[in-house]
Amino acid sequence: MADGESGPVTARELYNRVTSQGDRIRALKTEKAPKNDIDVAVKQLLALKVDYKNLTGQDYKPDSPPEHNVAMIQNCSPGADDGDDFVDPWTVQTGSAKGVDYDKLIVRFGSQKIEKELIDRIERVTGKKAHHFLRRGIFFSHRDMHQILDAYEKKKPFYIYTGRGPSSEAMHLGHLIPFIFTKWLQDVFDVPLVVQMTDDEKYLWKDLTLEKAYQYTIENAKDIIACGFDVDKTFIFSDLEYMGSSSGFYKNVVRVQKHVTFNQVKGIFGFTDSDCIGKISFPAIQAAPSFSSSFPDIFNGRKDIQCLIPCAIDQDPYFRMTRDVAPRINYPKPALLHSTFFPALQGAQTKMSASDPNSSIFLTDTPKQINAKVNKHAFSGGKDTIEEHRKYGGNCEVDVCYMYLTFFLEDDEKLERVRQDYSSGALLTGELKKLLIETLQPLIAAHQESRKQVSDEVVKQFMTPRKLAFDF
Amino acid sequence: MADGESGPVTARELYNRVTSQGDRIRALKTEKAPKNDIDVAVKQLLALKVDYKNLTGQDYKPDSPPEHNVAMIQNCSPGADDGDDFVDPWTVQTGSAKGVDYDKLIVRFGSQKIEKELIDRIERVTGKKAHHFLRRGIFFSHRDMHQILDAYEKKKPFYIYTGRGPSSEAMHLGHLIPFIFTKWLQDVFDVPLVVQMTDDEKYLWKDLTLEKAYQYTIENAKDIIACGFDVDKTFIFSDLEYMGSSSGFYKNVVRVQKHVTFNQVKGIFGFTDSDCIGKISFPAIQAAPSFSSSFPDIFNGRKDIQCLIPCAIDQDPYFRMTRDVAPRINYPKPALLHSTFFPALQGAQTKMSASDPNSSIFLTDTPKQINAKVNKHAFSGGKDTIEEHRKYGGNCEVDVCYMYLTFFLEDDEKLERVRQDYSSGALLTGELKKLLIETLQPLIAAHQESRKQVSDEVVKQFMTPRKLAFDF
Repeated sequence: MADGESGPVTARELYNRVTSQGDRIRALKTEKAPKNDIDVAVKQLLALKVDYKNLTGQDYKPDSPPEHNVAMIQNCSPGADDGDDFVDPWTVQTGSAKGVDYDKLIVRFGSQKIEKELIDRIERVTGKKAHHFLRRGIFFSHRDMHQILDAYEKKKPFYIYTGRGPSSEAMHLGHLIPFIFTKWLQDVFDVPLVVQMTDDEKYLWKDLTLEKAYQYTIENAKDIIACGFDVDKTFIFSDLEYMGSSSGFYKNVVRVQKHVTFNQVKGIFGFTDSDCIGKISFPAIQAAPSFSSSFPDIFNGRKDIQCLIPCAIDQDPYFRMTRDVAPRINYPKPALLHSTFFPALQGAQTKMSASDPNSSIFLTDTPKQINAKVNKHAFSGGKDTIEEHRKYGGNCEVDVCYMYLTFFLEDDEKLERVRQDYSSGALLTGELKKLLIETLQPLIAAHQESRKQVSDEVVKQFMTPRKLAFDF
Repeated sequence: MADGESGPVTARELYNRVTSQGDRIRALKTEKAPKNDIDVAVKQLLALKVDYKNLTGQDYKPDSPPEHNVAMIQNCSPGADDGDDFVDPWTVQTGSAKGVDYDKLIVRFGSQKIEKELIDRIERVTGKKAHHFLRRGIFFSHRDMHQILDAYEKKKPFYIYTGRGPSSEAMHLGHLIPFIFTKWLQDVFDVPLVVQMTDDEKYLWKDLTLEKAYQYTIENAKDIIACGFDVDKTFIFSDLEYMGSSSGFYKNVVRVQKHVTFNQVKGIFGFTDSDCIGKISFPAIQAAPSFSSSFPDIFNGRKDIQCLIPCAIDQDPYFRMTRDVAPRINYPKPALLHSTFFPALQGAQTKMSASDPNSSIFLTDTPKQINAKVNKHAFSGGKDTIEEHRKYGGNCEVDVCYMYLTFFLEDDEKLERVRQDYSSGALLTGELKKLLIETLQPLIAAHQESRKQVSDEVVKQFMTPRKLAFDF
């Protein structure tokens, strides 16, 4: 799972995306994919062609790449129309303080919105109240979640796969979102969970040694385990380690690698000819855990167990690719649940960076640091003076403290009161910040306490390939 | 280890080779490579630029690929000058019935000729007579063999690595050449041997299932074991299997993958954007066994044991790449011994094909089949009539039976007599064919007998990662 930096999209990259999307449509037709899938892909192709023409002034022509490699700052995601957001596994850019326009992203990516009806159904089949991440639209988009529920109702098994790119020892609050939600999913559905630590990816992308990347894996695994996962139901693995100890993983990697061309990864991920061959083939490594036969110890060699992947929406390109490949290698397509991005303290325009200590609250921060960071850096939707604030009220849509509370204040009524009071001006910015600080300090302290209990021995247990508490 | 088909080199591929060669020279300079290495690389670059200009009529300009992708039939190997041979891991083409011009290949590839002085030195340090493959120039080129001998003289360990791409169950005579020679090397130097079966490569390149590719590995391993390797000193591994059972192999694969760009593999192997990402990243998998830390069980985790690779010259591009990468990941460069190609029955213009049963003698052929194939298909250097033959003599330089005898008739004096008699016309074509048949029939029969003794249990022993009979 990647995060990092990148530039604007260039004419050549856009050209490659059009080419690749054409390849994809032909592949969909060859494998007689559902008409709806093909229609969505064609719409995306047309949108890409419009982008290409806007950027270069020329129509897209096969085998005739653009002469001038001009760059596009806006409208640059796959299927972009009139927005100005850019989202891929390495870059999230938006011009809006409210953050990325997620409804547009759903259209561009061709996923489905998580409607109230789906949330109701999840509550019905599990008999549990939906997690507030679902109720509040933090997990907002999905692919094939109804299929997972159909299977669940028929007592058919499925499993959950999520991951983390261990790029530093220090994880921040945003990194916890998929794991908090995954923990809830595991609890309510009672299914196996696999967690991929992409230390190979971090080695390939960053200026890191293999040893350092693996060390980050171990440190990050402790934070993940501290979220409360059940060791009998959870397998955490380092790519660097598991590739060399699984009889199923590499075979699935190479199956995916046979069915994805450089044109396709160029189109999906924007790779160029100067990228190393490790980056170019890496998407297959993130794809492989979507298939149950990558985990023969857990699934007893079965290859038909469907997979559900909760992840941030920026990881979707990997899994669009995976879903394209799956039927061609006779595996079920993974289902997905997509989350929004956790905003940086400085505002929702950008994704947080683990390398900027002031862009978020880290899981290692002291109560004092939390206090200082929130007070100093959290972008406020309040007015300039108390008088104006009392008169006009604050803007929750851009206020980072309020956004953070939607993630971490579980009490719906209290949160709604905060929203009303801040919007009306009854609640001042200082008071809102205090409330966030008082919410985060015990949460982080509890995490730190929980992490302390995670010994190296416990990490080893989680990371040992083995049968879990499920029979297949 | 690849063999297969490919087309002529196009302007775009040549353009990419120039670009890649430029990258390579910059890398050599950055890492302060020996001046001689840089000089050779620069010469190759200049030759490529000349080729490019000849083909396109234009000078090579960076960032300005050719508009018209014309194809070149001649002069198309890296650094080609005035020859008309083409050699890469998938294609060997020559217009000459004598076969490829190996002296030119040495210049193009930048390797060293195996001179008499080197052969004498091998005999001196091992105290054994040189194998007739060395004495007769069948192994004709090397890289750093003197370094290996220096080390050997100082009692420093090294190991041998060779391999096979298992593309079908039936191996032919030509496939035995590297193994016959490797067996001799192992015997005289008494060192560990690793044999890579690139079943993943065959799955990626051919219309094969993974299961089938692995099955070919097992069948081919039996033929290799039948050459007489010592199970206590030899480890044979399937990529598909070993990748998932070695703590060292994948780590080295990913190390190499980080240090090779798509531009480079395009230049070296002629990959295009339509190739699957598995092919593009595969060269790292053939590179990794060149490093001793890929075999922690054998070398006890040591990463400084030098590797010697006996292989056919068409595999050299993989190892040129490997040697470029090695110093950048702090590993010793592998040394190489290159063999000529084993000619097809129809003549030395082409490499044999395992898919054409009449192009060679297979290890499964019966005495009758050997008799029929040699009589029917072996290209003859004899004259059209007995009268002419007696008068003018035959041409050993193009006669396939004579060529085969240079490989399999160990008696130097007898071979020389055959050469003189056939050249003078004293020996008729039918007699020469008979001599070859009588040489091959017992050889193949002995191989078949030896292969019968190789049980599945024995294959399993060879293919189990384990400590060999050497202390590291």
